[in-house]
Amino acid sequence: MRKPVIGIMGGSKASRGVAATARRLGELIARRGWILLTGGRNVGVMAASARGAKEAGGFVVGVLPDRSDRKASPHLDVVIRTDMGDARNVINVLSSDVVIACPGRMGTLSEVALALNAGKRVILVGFELCDPPFRKYIKNGRLTTAATAEDALNQVDDALKERDQ
Amino acid sequence: MRKPVIGIMGGSKASRGVAATARRLGELIARRGWILLTGGRNVGVMAASARGAKEAGGFVVGVLPDRSDRKASPHLDVVIRTDMGDARNVINVLSSDVVIACPGRMGTLSEVALALNAGKRVILVGFELCDPPFRKYIKNGRLTTAATAEDALNQVDDALKERDQ
Amino acid sequence: MRKPVIGIMGGSKASRGVAATARRLGELIARRGWILLTGGRNVGVMAASARGAKEAGGFVVGVLPDRSDRKASPHLDVVIRTDMGDARNVINVLSSDVVIACPGRMGTLSEVALALNAGKRVILVGFELCDPPFRKYIKNGRLTTAATAEDALNQVDDALKERDQ
Amino acid sequence: MRKPVIGIMGGSKASRGVAATARRLGELIARRGWILLTGGRNVGVMAASARGAKEAGGFVVGVLPDRSDRKASPHLDVVIRTDMGDARNVINVLSSDVVIACPGRMGTLSEVALALNAGKRVILVGFELCDPPFRKYIKNGRLTTAATAEDALNQVDDALKERDQ
Repeated sequence: MRKPVIGIMGGSKASRGVAATARRLGELIARRGWILLTGGRNVGVMAASARGAKEAGGFVVGVLPDRSDRKASPHLDVVIRTDMGDARNVINVLSSDVVIACPGRMGTLSEVALALNAGKRVILVGFELCDPPFRKYIKNGRLTTAATAEDALNQVDDALKERDQ
Repeated sequence: MRKPVIGIMGGSKASRGVAATARRLGELIARRGWILLTGGRNVGVMAASARGAKEAGGFVVGVLPDRSDRKASPHLDVVIRTDMGDARNVINVLSSDVVIACPGRMGTLSEVALALNAGKRVILVGFELCDPPFRKYIKNGRLTTAATAEDALNQVDDALKERDQ
Repeated sequence: MRKPVIGIMGGSKASRGVAATARRLGELIARRGWILLTGGRNVGVMAASARGAKEAGGFVVGVLPDRSDRKASPHLDVVIRTDMGDARNVINVLSSDVVIACPGRMGTLSEVALALNAGKRVILVGFELCDPPFRKYIKNGRLTTAATAEDALNQVDDALKERDQ
Repeated sequence: MRKPVIGIMGGSKASRGVAATARRLGELIARRGWILLTGGRNVGVMAASARGAKEAGGFVVGVLPDRSDRKASPHLDVVIRTDMGDARNVINVLSSDVVIACPGRMGTLSEVALALNAGKRVILVGFELCDPPFRKYIKNGRLTTAATAEDALNQVDDALKERDQ
């Protein structure tokens, strides 16, 4: 049985608070024995979550938009180099069993939309999305919001249990 | 000088009203002498806008998520076959000079987000997006809403003028 | 009925002779009333064939590996911006009804291989490929060699007739 | 320091001899403590090399052309789902530090070409490529042939040493 792969998406610029949450998310994913998947660059939520996971002894896959490792986080175990810019956002979400989104901008929002479109369970940490296109997913429980990293991980636990039933 | 390429995005399921607007948008783009770019399939907003443009003597490029033409609209002049699923959404918006979005679901929303991320001017027709990540773009005028097809085209006129200054 | 789309692939560096053949190929495609598809950049075989087609009144689609038009040929009618590097080679061949390959290097070779893999008819102009993996395709007639641009176009005529039977 | 990632490419149909070599290659990569990257499907060279690596206690990344795991090898630790068909061949080679190619057809050939185009070291096991476009790479030593799995691994050793100098 393969280990679950949990994707963390989020802004390439992150406030101190958002970075701390992302790092804690990475740590908790590592402690569960799961694999962390991020966008791979050494900035923002990607860097913070990779660091958190790695420092807790976890395994991190980074799916870069780039052709080389020049901008990669130093906390990756496997680097997927796509040279595909934002098209790698699709790969990020398809390759994750569950997607956690931290605050970000349009890149993050595209990943939330692509993940829901692919039938993935998406958990927003520390922010909400309420525009009409999201309401169906809030209603059917595929899009939820978590207040803290711990809360998000509990929701991932539930999502994985539901998937494996 | 190349003709402007205007992308119309929107749901693969469209109500009668949305389809009528999409068809009218295609017609108006054709009458301006511009090229219409759509997602290429023979459903929803894609099909309606392609039909409107073609019936008004326009030129239509369809960027398919597929490997073959089996699901393509019959109203396309050029078919780009990507075999890339939702990753073709990135190509749709990068290849458009201005993006018009009709109501849709997560595919459409991903295109709005990817277009704004790529610095494109995006015009929503008949719906609004107000969630926090969009506010910066509403404020700086890159994301606007139009009530009608005519209103949307006037906004495209302005966007192209601004671009060419 | 859509016009046939003929793809011309080939090196981003082209000798004077190869460039002349590519330009002639573009011209002949335009005279047949077909659409030319190239890799879109303003170098080598891409630039020469686009110029040939455009100067003969043809229509040219360029599928760029880039995010912007900065490196695009000035002789394109539609620019598909992929921001996907060599992954756009797949799109080039899938979007062509028949593929013509002029001498080139590994990019061109990848396009020949991807085109044959996708079941496309491939015509090499002015060079041959004889390595074992190609032999099956030479034997079944999907991979042929043409000595001149005129010869290549006659082979395209036959390929389109066969397709339409 | 990340572990080296060695890509094994090759046919989705493999003779008994080719499959045995692929399995041995996977085993040797695992014994070196490296990560194996394959195309991920449960057929041919991909399946055999993944099995060999996994049975020797290695770690295997599979980069699928698909949207789901339905066709995936059971011997993968991480599955990258691209939903991009042959465009994932680009990701395979960019994400590998060294590429080993076993006999295959056009998919494999496209990967050899894309790998050389990306500046990667490519080792052919049990076959040769001699067509003119390859000669430059044979001459400069980036494209070599190995007779056995052991020979191939010795060449990977050298390639990694050279890279790290």
